[in-house]
Amino acid sequence: MTVAIIGTVALDSIKTPSGEHNRILGGSATFSATAATIFGPAGIVSIVGKDFPSEHIEFFKSRNINLDGLHHSEGDTFHWKGYYEGDMNQAITVKTDLNVLLEFDPVIPDSLKKSPIVFMANVDPVLQEKAIRQFESPELVILDTMNFWIEHKLEALKQTLKLVDILIVNDQEIRQLTGDYNLITAISKAIELGPKRVVVKKGEHGAMMFDGTDFYMFPAYPLSNLVDPTGAGDSFAGAFAGYLSTQKSISDETYKQAVIAGTLVSSHTVQDFSLNSLKKITPEVLNQTFKAFKPLISHPTTI
Amino acid sequence: MTVAIIGTVALDSIKTPSGEHNRILGGSATFSATAATIFGPAGIVSIVGKDFPSEHIEFFKSRNINLDGLHHSEGDTFHWKGYYEGDMNQAITVKTDLNVLLEFDPVIPDSLKKSPIVFMANVDPVLQEKAIRQFESPELVILDTMNFWIEHKLEALKQTLKLVDILIVNDQEIRQLTGDYNLITAISKAIELGPKRVVVKKGEHGAMMFDGTDFYMFPAYPLSNLVDPTGAGDSFAGAFAGYLSTQKSISDETYKQAVIAGTLVSSHTVQDFSLNSLKKITPEVLNQTFKAFKPLISHPTTI
Repeated sequence: MTVAIIGTVALDSIKTPSGEHNRILGGSATFSATAATIFGPAGIVSIVGKDFPSEHIEFFKSRNINLDGLHHSEGDTFHWKGYYEGDMNQAITVKTDLNVLLEFDPVIPDSLKKSPIVFMANVDPVLQEKAIRQFESPELVILDTMNFWIEHKLEALKQTLKLVDILIVNDQEIRQLTGDYNLITAISKAIELGPKRVVVKKGEHGAMMFDGTDFYMFPAYPLSNLVDPTGAGDSFAGAFAGYLSTQKSISDETYKQAVIAGTLVSSHTVQDFSLNSLKKITPEVLNQTFKAFKPLISHPTTI
Repeated sequence: MTVAIIGTVALDSIKTPSGEHNRILGGSATFSATAATIFGPAGIVSIVGKDFPSEHIEFFKSRNINLDGLHHSEGDTFHWKGYYEGDMNQAITVKTDLNVLLEFDPVIPDSLKKSPIVFMANVDPVLQEKAIRQFESPELVILDTMNFWIEHKLEALKQTLKLVDILIVNDQEIRQLTGDYNLITAISKAIELGPKRVVVKKGEHGAMMFDGTDFYMFPAYPLSNLVDPTGAGDSFAGAFAGYLSTQKSISDETYKQAVIAGTLVSSHTVQDFSLNSLKKITPEVLNQTFKAFKPLISHPTTI
C-alpha cells in the first residue's frame, strides 16, 4: 500500500556545530518519503523549481518513489537557511525563500488517489485540507504542522484537523496549539479537535502517544553524535506511516511498533546532514538498531 | 539498613499556578528522608532554627526518622521563597534566607556512622565531603548537587565527586557540570569525575541511568495535575536510596527498579504542595501506581 505524502521538497543551507552545507536536499516530503520507503512504497506530491538538481530526482527514482505528483515549475526551489546551536533542540531560521512554494497547489495524481495512508507533512493547512479532500476514502490521514501555521492560520488548521486521524507534532507545537503547558492535558485537548490519536515527538526525550484513553511513553535512542537535527520529525512521521502501510491489520501494538520505527529511523537521520545517514537504513540496519535499543528500554516487571 | 541523609530542612514560600503557600515544610533532606521511609528507615543530618514548628518534628518522628543528627540552633530556619510558571520546569527564586544554614557543620551521629547507604542531598560540596568522610566505609555514597555549586564551587565539587558512587542530578546540572550540551556525552564525562553510575532526572521527560557501559531510559509517569514541582528531585533520590536499602543484593535490575521507584514516588510528590501528597504514599499505593504505569511503558518486543 503506497503512502501518499504531501509536503515540501527543499534545498537547505544548514550550519550546526558539526559543519556547514549549502543547498543540500531537504524538505518535509523528502525526509518522510525516504523514511517511508524503508518499509514500503511511497509517493510525493510537491513542487520543485528549475534549479532542482536532477541527481535528486534520480535519488527519488532509485527509491521507487512515485513522482506523478511532483510538479516542476519555472521558479526556484524552496530554500531554507538556518542553524542549530547549544542543545540543538530548536532550529534558528536565517532566511526562508518560499519561491515555487508560493504557487504550490497540490493536485493528487490518479495513481495516488486510492492511497490508504496519506501523510500531510508540514505545509499550509489550507493546502492540507485541499489535498485530503482529493483522496478516495483513505483509511488513515496523518498530519504534521508547525508553529508558523498555529500562529497565523489557526482556524484553517482546526478545520483541517477535523479530517485527520493521527496528529504528529512536537511538544512545543502541541502546547502552542492547545494553549496548555502541561503535555498530558494539551494532548487530551488536541483529541477534541478531531484526531483520534496524537503522537508527540520530543527529540532527545523520546515520544508519547495518546489514543484517547491511554498514554504511551517512548524513550529516545541515546545518541552521542547528533550532527544535524533537520528532518528528524519528518523521518519519524514517514517511518511511522511507512511501517503502518506494511501491516495487514493495525492494532494498539502496531501503533507502538510504528512509534519505535519512527524513533529508530530518526535517530539515524540526525547522525549526518541531509539524507546521508537516512538513505543507508535498510530493514536489516533497523533491526540491528532495535536489537541494541531493546535492552535500554526494557523495564522491570516488578518493584 | 538505615539511609543516612545529609541535606537541608527548610521552610518554603511557594507560588505556582495552583496556589500560594507560605513557610511550608520543605528542604532536600525533608523530601528525601520522607521518600526513603516509604521503603525503610532513614536518618537526617541537618539544622533547623528556633522558629521550626514542633509539628514538623512530630511528623519526622511519626515516620521513625532518626533525628540524632538534626541540630537545633538559635537562629531562624533556612527559608526559600520562589515560584513556578509556564511549563514549571524551572523554579524561579525570589529570596533565599540561608539563616542557620550558614552555621551548618554536619556532624554524623554515632547512630548513623555505620549506615551502608548515605545520600548527600544538595548542600555545599565542602560540607558533603566533610560528611562523607565521617561514615565508616559506606557501601553506597549517593550525591545530588545544583547549579549554584557547579558555578561557584566546581573544584570542591570535583574533589567530593571522587568519593561518590552514584551521582543523581538533573539534565541542566549534568550539562553545566561537564560543559557538554549532549546528554549522552555529558553523562559519559561525569563518570570520569569519579561516580561509577549516573542517574539524570529530566522531570516530565523521565530519567536516564548510565552504568559506565550502557544507558537506560525511563519515561516519566504522565501527569495532568502538576501542582508544585518542589521536592520532586529529592523525593526521586530519597526513594531511589530507600529502595536500594531494602534489597539483599543489588544488581543491574535492582538499580532499574530503584529508578522506577524514584519516578513513581516523585510523580506523587508534585501532585500537591509540600509533603501533602508524598506522605500519603504507602508500599500499597506505590504498587498500584506501578500497576497503572506498567502498560504505558511496556514496549513491543519486535518491530
